[in-house]
Amino acid sequence: MPSGWAVRYDRVDAGRRSVAEAGETDLSAVTHQISAALAAFVDDRVQSAVARSFPVDVPLALGEFLNAGGKRLRPLLRVLGWRAAGGTGPMTSAIRFGAALEMFHVFCLIHDDVMDDPDTRRGRPTVHRALAKRHRNGRTAQAAERVGVSAAILAGDLALVWSDELLNASEAQLEPEVRTRVLRLVGLMRTEVLFGQYMDLEATGRPSADADRAPAIVRYKTATYTCERPLQIGAALAGAFLDRLSAFALPLGEAFQLRDDLLGVFGQQAETGKSVLDDLREGKHTLLIALALNAADPHQERLIRGLYGNPRLDERAAGTLREVLRATGADRAVEDVISSRHAQSLAALDAMPLDADVRAELAEQAAWRSG
Amino acid sequence: MPSGWAVRYDRVDAGRRSVAEAGETDLSAVTHQISAALAAFVDDRVQSAVARSFPVDVPLALGEFLNAGGKRLRPLLRVLGWRAAGGTGPMTSAIRFGAALEMFHVFCLIHDDVMDDPDTRRGRPTVHRALAKRHRNGRTAQAAERVGVSAAILAGDLALVWSDELLNASEAQLEPEVRTRVLRLVGLMRTEVLFGQYMDLEATGRPSADADRAPAIVRYKTATYTCERPLQIGAALAGAFLDRLSAFALPLGEAFQLRDDLLGVFGQQAETGKSVLDDLREGKHTLLIALALNAADPHQERLIRGLYGNPRLDERAAGTLREVLRATGADRAVEDVISSRHAQSLAALDAMPLDADVRAELAEQAAWRSG
Repeated sequence: MPSGWAVRYDRVDAGRRSVAEAGETDLSAVTHQISAALAAFVDDRVQSAVARSFPVDVPLALGEFLNAGGKRLRPLLRVLGWRAAGGTGPMTSAIRFGAALEMFHVFCLIHDDVMDDPDTRRGRPTVHRALAKRHRNGRTAQAAERVGVSAAILAGDLALVWSDELLNASEAQLEPEVRTRVLRLVGLMRTEVLFGQYMDLEATGRPSADADRAPAIVRYKTATYTCERPLQIGAALAGAFLDRLSAFALPLGEAFQLRDDLLGVFGQQAETGKSVLDDLREGKHTLLIALALNAADPHQERLIRGLYGNPRLDERAAGTLREVLRATGADRAVEDVISSRHAQSLAALDAMPLDADVRAELAEQAAWRSG
Repeated sequence: MPSGWAVRYDRVDAGRRSVAEAGETDLSAVTHQISAALAAFVDDRVQSAVARSFPVDVPLALGEFLNAGGKRLRPLLRVLGWRAAGGTGPMTSAIRFGAALEMFHVFCLIHDDVMDDPDTRRGRPTVHRALAKRHRNGRTAQAAERVGVSAAILAGDLALVWSDELLNASEAQLEPEVRTRVLRLVGLMRTEVLFGQYMDLEATGRPSADADRAPAIVRYKTATYTCERPLQIGAALAGAFLDRLSAFALPLGEAFQLRDDLLGVFGQQAETGKSVLDDLREGKHTLLIALALNAADPHQERLIRGLYGNPRLDERAAGTLREVLRATGADRAVEDVISSRHAQSLAALDAMPLDADVRAELAEQAAWRSG
């Protein structure tokens, strides 16, 4: 094993052991149990790679990334969907299935970062940057960057393959009917996020005043795979299909993404773990920009179109752009949409026949970044 | 559906129908049946995307790519592995499983092309080039290229997800024990090719005289997923594990890759469908280069190191490089290794207790590009 990674690898392993020893069973411990399951899985795969003399940079980079944080929101919602549908009993399979969803999320984030090219994620270098640095020795900066991107594409591919293996291990014991239903939902989730990413990509660098387009992008690149499908998968695993879960999940997922868009433009790096310039330089088509262009006077519109999506935008120009966006009132308009989606989501929750504690837990998940 | 794609889409569909109508059942028809199954699958997914108002560029690009050729070698070997293990009966499930392997191959090729950046594949623009062209309108060449790369990453991801869906549909009816064995082999195949690609990537741009390293790269990036695992998966589906298949498959896969390496350097574009400069500009670590550096005098070594892997290499310099490589005798040495691997493979075939027709068909597959 390359020595540079050994220390970090030990950390992953230590984290895994300490969590496994805790042996908690309440919902608040699910996050830890999922992290432990993921660390154990990566650990096992690293050992297999070592045994076959495969290079372990990529599996270790995945372990690092998983260890760096993440709210494990999708696995939690999968557990809550299962409980909402009356699922009871041991959580072992729930944990493994949740780990598969989290690994799928890792795949999405790594390929997303290759496409959008930010420097940081979760307060650390993105996977393609870390792997570029690892391959810098004896290469030009440009050549190392290319190797980093290629290695990160492979890292994302490996995460997708691994998420599938975690899934296969989880659904081997399912009733055929349940299995078919779950795999259909997993298939929809995967397809939707890939199409959502493609819609996002098509619109990037082409900000427009079209406020109708942004919600479709948000829905498929975020809301279904973050909220709706994990809840539905959980319910399906408990043998039920709760279509009313969508009325809770979709506005919630939309609120999450809109909050993310606002933080990308107005947030602090300490809070988001991302550079405060990346989103502005990238120039994605978001509701914020659509509403700003709708409300802008000709001078403001010129400024927005000149600065938003400029890959060389500096701090000062970013400050100007933020001021203009605020002056159009678009930030407050997006806050209003977030509040309204959050309220919509909670109203749908109230209308569902649920155990009080499941309802309370879902409401708690909904509170995250929605306020 | 965007009009630019409609014509090509109709072609895919027409191809599908004409093949389905043929209704052949012998092995030579398996290629066509697999192509038809793939076209039908893509067709179905395009319709679903249209129904949900998703953009269809990526699914159509995948359909195009599948329609542009390919020998369907992996699906054929999967069928032959099944027959070698005594598999009989209808081929329906074999065809679907074969389609899954071919879709996995498409995933590998598209991401490989994103990493290696050639202009052409199968005599047409690579997927990332085609998608860049599609997104050129209103963008700078550089911005369009970035969008093309991102879209091709998503296209590869979608092919991987689809290969998994074809797989799920095929193995739903399997006995649990067979299913476990098959999924294990599929998992090994996926992991090996990703690690093989990573080993290849690490060594690219760093040609060396280390002739021991090239075979490991060739084994994992090509031989296992092209030959060994498809044969083993076929055998496992017939309920058997034939470990002797590896003795046939691995040297064969190695011979294929070495032939590919030679064609990449000395072949004609009409023959390979690829530019004759791409491999030289890319500078992968191959057995050819290792042997050339081993045999080179100081002047030849300087020329090889100066020209091989130079991204701006022109036709004339490429001619010089080819002459130097020939002068070292490395091309003939690689031809000798190919012959020896081919002979090894056929000897293993002779040693296996097989039906005469299966043996003949395997020998025929082995003849491709080995001579």
